Amino acid sequence: MGYLRLPLESARRLCGAIFESYGFSPDQAREITGVLLAADLNGIESHGLSRLVRYDREINSGFVDIHAQPQTVFETPISAVIDARKSMGQLVSCHGMRMAVEKARKSGAGMVAVRNSNHYGIAGYYARMACEADLMGICMTNSEAILVPTFARAAMLGTNPIALAMPADPIDFVFDAATSVVPLGRLEVFNKRGQPLPEGWALDAEGLDTRDAAEVIANICGRKGGGIVPLGGSDETGGGHKGYGFALICELMTAILSSGLTSDEVNVTPGVNGMSHCFIAMDYGLFGDKQAIRAHFSNYLSKLRSAAKARGQDRVYTHGEKEYYARERIAAEGIPVNQVTLSEMLKIASSRGVDTGFLAEVLKEAP
Amino acid sequence: MGYLRLPLESARRLCGAIFESYGFSPDQAREITGVLLAADLNGIESHGLSRLVRYDREINSGFVDIHAQPQTVFETPISAVIDARKSMGQLVSCHGMRMAVEKARKSGAGMVAVRNSNHYGIAGYYARMACEADLMGICMTNSEAILVPTFARAAMLGTNPIALAMPADPIDFVFDAATSVVPLGRLEVFNKRGQPLPEGWALDAEGLDTRDAAEVIANICGRKGGGIVPLGGSDETGGGHKGYGFALICELMTAILSSGLTSDEVNVTPGVNGMSHCFIAMDYGLFGDKQAIRAHFSNYLSKLRSAAKARGQDRVYTHGEKEYYARERIAAEGIPVNQVTLSEMLKIASSRGVDTGFLAEVLKEAP
Repeated sequence: MGYLRLPLESARRLCGAIFESYGFSPDQAREITGVLLAADLNGIESHGLSRLVRYDREINSGFVDIHAQPQTVFETPISAVIDARKSMGQLVSCHGMRMAVEKARKSGAGMVAVRNSNHYGIAGYYARMACEADLMGICMTNSEAILVPTFARAAMLGTNPIALAMPADPIDFVFDAATSVVPLGRLEVFNKRGQPLPEGWALDAEGLDTRDAAEVIANICGRKGGGIVPLGGSDETGGGHKGYGFALICELMTAILSSGLTSDEVNVTPGVNGMSHCFIAMDYGLFGDKQAIRAHFSNYLSKLRSAAKARGQDRVYTHGEKEYYARERIAAEGIPVNQVTLSEMLKIASSRGVDTGFLAEVLKEAP
Repeated sequence: MGYLRLPLESARRLCGAIFESYGFSPDQAREITGVLLAADLNGIESHGLSRLVRYDREINSGFVDIHAQPQTVFETPISAVIDARKSMGQLVSCHGMRMAVEKARKSGAGMVAVRNSNHYGIAGYYARMACEADLMGICMTNSEAILVPTFARAAMLGTNPIALAMPADPIDFVFDAATSVVPLGRLEVFNKRGQPLPEGWALDAEGLDTRDAAEVIANICGRKGGGIVPLGGSDETGGGHKGYGFALICELMTAILSSGLTSDEVNVTPGVNGMSHCFIAMDYGLFGDKQAIRAHFSNYLSKLRSAAKARGQDRVYTHGEKEYYARERIAAEGIPVNQVTLSEMLKIASSRGVDTGFLAEVLKEAP
């Protein structure tokens, strides 16, 4: 598939103009754009510009209410529950993490659960918001049911990512991982290429191992059973029950604490996604001298990166390191946008009456 | 291997008498015994009576200081750091979780990090302490380095279990899992049986996949490289970098927040284990009506248990369910104690001058 390099500033301008065209304020459009482009900048193509088509559909069909005012329905000095009322996921999520950060600054910790929301992009973005305020940040979300519990036949949990960010030098620790063995996007890649899935990723409609990506995707969309297995695999030998447990913890911290919909109920009622999120900020100064704690952690991460490598390997990474280097590289070289995403973006811009004249120079080089 | 059924009361009496013989008070001996027997009652033989021989060795050789007074070295209304000063792990851990529970009752949340401790038994025990106080409980510990980071050659992290307990009806949710694909005990079982390990559990001294349990155990003990792989496997295909990340989060919450030793430094200095733990209690009333939240969670767990089963399977479990039924069964039938453990226990009792006459009836049936 052909790729074009879209300069960061052009991507920001196009994306912002599209979101303003729906009726979001310039500040709101900038905030949504920031979350989307952070995914592309981190090298996570599946959660960036390529999601514009989904957001366009969900805004046009009433899943997202652009006028929604998120409402705080319960609050203590260290916690809150927010009803997103069908807000754009990125907006209520930035709001939720800002609230958690403010509480952590005043009281040491802030935990905010959100219900009735929409897809919010990458979990790591919000965890990093806390990290940039020199706090530990944690973020989770549930999603459409796609993960099959150990020994079950049908999906009952989402890919349920868990993200945790903690300041460190020179590279912050940023863990951000689906608790399913892979996210749906990875299956789609194999499907497009017509390749069989690696063993141990997915289950057919009877809950048995399969390597047929097309069948799994069709079954998930048609709610016919099967889906993706938890981190650790389809049975207990590789610890699949542990991945299932981490996914369930994510469900607890999001849907249960917010009194929202669990993943098996998400995107079931027409026009309603109803995802739940959780945002936690924690001042690690609750445990002593921040500089000393940060130095201790940085030193341990550095020991890990410089650990002796397995035969045939030349790098041991810490979490967030690959993305750190990707951001540097992509900010300089531009965002790699594939042909399909590019034509989707231009189609959306055209349907919204967004002038894309400023892209003329860039598009000359389009594949 | 032959097994004897030891009545719970006899096990409690023997165990308590042994710990009193070292100089622990009756209350302390009861507390340590409670943690140990909880493992056996939960069906986790590897962490119960079979560990007596390890504790005996560590108490006799100065790893554990039976007179240690744990010291709170940093404290806020919602957090504390405790220097265990070589306390028996179970004692400082019960103390740590009690402190977290008290803080959660007063302020909504309590987070206690502990350093310079020893092996503490099963993580789930302490998480359940919070759960029994109608709070969410979280507990983690680091341990000797045994887990090899993705693409590395040598172990740098412990098995680093993460436990989380949350009240639910009729069965509490109790997740308790090593972030390594399996704990060391599982390798020992295959070694004793002379069976090859399942694929994807362990690495040899060069960091390559191996199925030779004896070699892996010898390499770990001799610090020659290799070890157990993270949950998700030895590379990124099955998500091994995610298991490595969860293990690293455990290291952060224990060794880093307590300013203690990281797993690569644990049990390196002669006579010093130096493990770090973390105990968190959180009042889920921070998020609204507790009864409603509990009912919502119970209902979701029940939906999971009654989900359609994969072909060939007849149960879908929620975490803590197997242990719930094991406790009922084992409390009634007695603790299954294997021949080796039994003779180790009797040898320790004899070396400590503990009268085991009360066991005469039971031992008649010994294999």
